[in-house]
Amino acid sequence: MTSLPDLAAVEAMDAADPLRSFRSRFALPEGVIYLDGNSLGAASHDVFAELQQAATEEWGNGLIRSWNSAGWFHLPLDLGDSIGRLIGAAPGQTVVTDSTSINIYKTLHAALAMRPGRSVIVAEGDSFPTDLYMAEGVASTRPGVTLRLEGRDADTIEDLIDDQVAVVLVNHVNYKSAELRDMAALTRRIHEAGALVIWDLCHSAGALPVDLDGANADFAVGCTYKYLNGGPGSPAFIYAARRHHDAITQPLSGWWGHARPFAFEQNFAGGEGIKRFLCGTQPILSLRALKGVLGVWDEVDMGALRKKSIALTDLFIQLVEAKCGQHGVVLETTRDSEKRGSQVSFMHSNSYEVMQALIERGVIGDFRAPATLRFGFTPLYVGYRDVWRAVEVLEDILRSGSWKDARFAVRSTVT
Amino acid sequence: MTSLPDLAAVEAMDAADPLRSFRSRFALPEGVIYLDGNSLGAASHDVFAELQQAATEEWGNGLIRSWNSAGWFHLPLDLGDSIGRLIGAAPGQTVVTDSTSINIYKTLHAALAMRPGRSVIVAEGDSFPTDLYMAEGVASTRPGVTLRLEGRDADTIEDLIDDQVAVVLVNHVNYKSAELRDMAALTRRIHEAGALVIWDLCHSAGALPVDLDGANADFAVGCTYKYLNGGPGSPAFIYAARRHHDAITQPLSGWWGHARPFAFEQNFAGGEGIKRFLCGTQPILSLRALKGVLGVWDEVDMGALRKKSIALTDLFIQLVEAKCGQHGVVLETTRDSEKRGSQVSFMHSNSYEVMQALIERGVIGDFRAPATLRFGFTPLYVGYRDVWRAVEVLEDILRSGSWKDARFAVRSTVT
Repeated sequence: MTSLPDLAAVEAMDAADPLRSFRSRFALPEGVIYLDGNSLGAASHDVFAELQQAATEEWGNGLIRSWNSAGWFHLPLDLGDSIGRLIGAAPGQTVVTDSTSINIYKTLHAALAMRPGRSVIVAEGDSFPTDLYMAEGVASTRPGVTLRLEGRDADTIEDLIDDQVAVVLVNHVNYKSAELRDMAALTRRIHEAGALVIWDLCHSAGALPVDLDGANADFAVGCTYKYLNGGPGSPAFIYAARRHHDAITQPLSGWWGHARPFAFEQNFAGGEGIKRFLCGTQPILSLRALKGVLGVWDEVDMGALRKKSIALTDLFIQLVEAKCGQHGVVLETTRDSEKRGSQVSFMHSNSYEVMQALIERGVIGDFRAPATLRFGFTPLYVGYRDVWRAVEVLEDILRSGSWKDARFAVRSTVT
Repeated sequence: MTSLPDLAAVEAMDAADPLRSFRSRFALPEGVIYLDGNSLGAASHDVFAELQQAATEEWGNGLIRSWNSAGWFHLPLDLGDSIGRLIGAAPGQTVVTDSTSINIYKTLHAALAMRPGRSVIVAEGDSFPTDLYMAEGVASTRPGVTLRLEGRDADTIEDLIDDQVAVVLVNHVNYKSAELRDMAALTRRIHEAGALVIWDLCHSAGALPVDLDGANADFAVGCTYKYLNGGPGSPAFIYAARRHHDAITQPLSGWWGHARPFAFEQNFAGGEGIKRFLCGTQPILSLRALKGVLGVWDEVDMGALRKKSIALTDLFIQLVEAKCGQHGVVLETTRDSEKRGSQVSFMHSNSYEVMQALIERGVIGDFRAPATLRFGFTPLYVGYRDVWRAVEVLEDILRSGSWKDARFAVRSTVT
């Protein structure tokens, strides 16, 4: 690693940043350094305008007519294509709908139905847990289906794959360690065994370039409220490779997935292609907020984004280790930037209290049980000077021991 | 029926209306008579303020902290209790989440699991179709489960109920005919046969008083964007009677339904009570719009609402039959107001074209295939003078034959 940069060097990095103009597109509060865009992305000003238009003009004045005239009915497909451009999916293969959990359920069922005679789902033991809970839910409705977990049943995903495996559900970037998988290589390995893959992109969509089509992926799911900045709980997405479209069946077969939803037929008949992953009526206001920020994304060069993401995370690791290493923080994330998403995790024996102290000082990251300090770096609105300042505050908290104040130990509902 | 009222009599009804002040709480466009609140309710001004607060203050400034500080995480339960007051559910039995279709899936699975050894789902052949599509989806994942339909397998729901039936999924008010079922009597009949009931309240919540606890109902689902005015696609609700809470299992077992969602455990362990019907992260902006209007609902006397609803629909039927009866419109809804929801349907050989002509003249109802003109009467913002004027326009369109213009026959996506 290069020699430790000083403040002047860090400010020079900001001055040379080709993405620096995007910061003004987001509404960040004064005095806050926001390193939690990997949990909830910031609000863009475009979103406020979009929401106002959707609520007062389209809903208030357009009323029911806006399902057609404002294109509400097509939002899941239109927004899906906008996201498709960020994840390497040609048009018509991505749809925005429901939650990530529900979309995992749909894609697991679809994949299992496409591999009759195979009964194993492979997943990661250290996955964000809802992936595992949904796999459990799927298994509960399909007699004989079982779950094999990396870290429990074998050390690596690869060791779990054999001719019993129908589908592998795997995270592109781990939510806690930030480990980045090689999508193309693992997809190839899974296909060689005759299985299908579902990529969970929650921590990579909008964080780095993704190339689903190029990797020959089968399915993918992901959320839109982290790096994509779609707003709290904005609906999630599903990708399905076009070659699978005619084979898609899944039990959440609601009227939005019907070939003729307004014919009011008594029996279900799946619509064309990716539409088969739609189920019920979608929350339009939340979709419109997402639409607002996807306009910003249309202007982003994903190569420049990745380059800045690596520079930010490299700088953070270097500064924390140099300035806080003696205070018991230990790097959890890999030092190899090619195998890392856009976040950095450190462990500390009192991570919860340290994170609360940081948040009180305006440096917002998050705690992940049992002992992780997690910091996300969203290149659109985090700069190098922010990294410098965040480390200054962390160093001060650790050196002074101010995190030991009793109030920082009080746990809130959502941590 | 009483003698035909004249305009002065109708205006006197408005003057004496105890709910007339609510109209100013809603943002209805000039020149529009909105008789489609049974499809998408109007926007209340309170909702605009709520959305602005949620987007700019809570998301923009509060960022991730708002999950706790703004109570986002508790919205599904808090809003559930607010709706509970309108549907006769004591606190802790209702939750707002996901879509009606998905909630039907969850409750059907939960009910089937509570009746092992029974394998039949009973539903209505003329239900809004997504109920049937979801029942099909459930059956596809539970070997041996079959569907019996009223209107196909027997003339009445009652004739379909025997000791093979696990659960009956039934609409409180039919979406097309407006038929209102006797909830207490049918629930009793279903329980006598040892089965469970799921009431679909899409067309009764906010339209008339509902008494789930009083009727000893088991489960209910419903949407919030029709009579409740929650906004386009605002999330739906689930009710489960407290006596069933410990027995609830359903396969959409995501992290929001976990007993300890932030402990990040590897295995699913269902949370307490109604929380078990939660799955993934919810669209907060859409939930906040709903919250805005539920404040209005807190002020509404449901008895007065029902009285006005009956008066509006009685008046509409009386005026249409008197003034338009010779032009081929035939009443589809019952004349018996005690067996009718808050909407009125007429059939006409060219319903599609007639409805398009009405909408162009500012009278917004909707068309339901194959031949229904459907009009919803939402007592909070529709008055008696609106009914009078709507019938005047309908009469003019039918008498002049202006609906025959070719442009009215062009079908749009959502009809």
